[in-house]
Amino acid sequence: MAERVDPVKIKRVLGDGNSSENDLVVVEEPLEIRIGYGRESEREQIVLSVTMRTPGDDEHLCLGFIYSEGIISSAKEVLSAKYCSNVGEEDGGENVMRVELSQELHFNPDDFQRNFYMNSSCGVCGKASIEQVMQTCHPVADTGLNISTKIILSLPKVLEATQDVFKHTGGLHACGLFNTTGELMLHKEDVGRHNALDKLIGNLLVEDRLPAADKILMLSGRISFELVQKAVKAGIPIIAAVGAPSSLSIDLAKEYGVTLIGFLKGEGFNIYTGFQRIIE
Amino acid sequence: MAERVDPVKIKRVLGDGNSSENDLVVVEEPLEIRIGYGRESEREQIVLSVTMRTPGDDEHLCLGFIYSEGIISSAKEVLSAKYCSNVGEEDGGENVMRVELSQELHFNPDDFQRNFYMNSSCGVCGKASIEQVMQTCHPVADTGLNISTKIILSLPKVLEATQDVFKHTGGLHACGLFNTTGELMLHKEDVGRHNALDKLIGNLLVEDRLPAADKILMLSGRISFELVQKAVKAGIPIIAAVGAPSSLSIDLAKEYGVTLIGFLKGEGFNIYTGFQRIIE
Repeated sequence: MAERVDPVKIKRVLGDGNSSENDLVVVEEPLEIRIGYGRESEREQIVLSVTMRTPGDDEHLCLGFIYSEGIISSAKEVLSAKYCSNVGEEDGGENVMRVELSQELHFNPDDFQRNFYMNSSCGVCGKASIEQVMQTCHPVADTGLNISTKIILSLPKVLEATQDVFKHTGGLHACGLFNTTGELMLHKEDVGRHNALDKLIGNLLVEDRLPAADKILMLSGRISFELVQKAVKAGIPIIAAVGAPSSLSIDLAKEYGVTLIGFLKGEGFNIYTGFQRIIE
Repeated sequence: MAERVDPVKIKRVLGDGNSSENDLVVVEEPLEIRIGYGRESEREQIVLSVTMRTPGDDEHLCLGFIYSEGIISSAKEVLSAKYCSNVGEEDGGENVMRVELSQELHFNPDDFQRNFYMNSSCGVCGKASIEQVMQTCHPVADTGLNISTKIILSLPKVLEATQDVFKHTGGLHACGLFNTTGELMLHKEDVGRHNALDKLIGNLLVEDRLPAADKILMLSGRISFELVQKAVKAGIPIIAAVGAPSSLSIDLAKEYGVTLIGFLKGEGFNIYTGFQRIIE
């Protein structure tokens, strides 16, 4: 089991006094994601990305990431996702994961690399970014799904109660997937908020539960463009967050028919888009 | 002047009631950073990175970013940093910036791209990441600099008072540079915390104020590896943050002789490394 917390010795200052104490901090380590692809006789490998993450759930992280990036569209397109055991340095064993794509899947690393570097090469603006997303995503279906104000107000406490690493370290982002009666279906924590969501989406992908068209995504922090993009890709129609949304996250949510809720805490919240899904 | 906030219409829910209101959200837009390099007769251009940022201070953002990445070591190595006016799409005008490196500066995009993709290619682990940083950074000098507990406790309120965009949107990260008597020298806000720090470091670079060896960096959020890395590069010996540090940020701070303070709020804080710089 990967360690998610590290013990540290600290000096705690409170007013005029101070004391030496033992404390716990959240583990942050790099994960290198490699992709194996091509026909059996000519398999190749590239390093796709290095992300700083909290160890654990790495297979879900890798699959969620490559799903969000549009490299795969189902778990069937992946043969395996395993730590590289031949990495040499022992410490590196669980920080390098190789994902083997199925032979049938077309994967051209040039497409991806160009995309990565030049993902909005002409006329970079919010509109261009959204248009680019539109090429690989579909708007979320309006199935008449709705959720009551009362249930929305209940979500933060449920998510908070699951945050076992956060409780000890204060250093993690969390995301949770709820149904419309407010039951928590799945939750993940990570030092990076995009990683937490990739882990959640990767887990859903492996269990063949995508699109998650009747679920609500709850985030412990703020809402950025990137997080909405990942949720859209997973077909999630409602996003609620403790923090503030950015301008571009609202634009994207509006364009894709996603309900966006921010500042969800205490007795209130703000609805930015998709008002029709919230009932009293 | 770049817009940093956008007006939006929201529905505000509070307990059983709700109302339609006008609100402000923080602007998030992509910035594409292009690099022009080479001898006059054969100038070339590459797209270095696309980052989601809050508009404004883009020149500082670009310079701070390429300084942190080790591409330049002083502002003299940059001829200019300007928005691309020939981008075609009008909206994109202020979302693409081209940085012209001096002809004398050796810049090989292959080095950079490989570095970017494979920045810890063999034995990816915390140790390897730190060793890689060590190749391009120097430990922070121990000049006998110290700061009192009382002044540290005063920093959050000073930084908070400067956060004009945050006040209206709740959607931004801030960083501030203080001297040891607790005076704020410089501060920046951005939707991305790494951007806020790049803007601050870029500003210092342009004004030839690096290394900032007698200053304290205050962060509004959590402390990640990447933020400590940027601070080390800028020669800043003390980092204080409202949030929690990660394991790797502590390791890096220890290795480089940086004082790391977390959970700075109210009447207390935790010291993780570099205890000698904090006096009562």
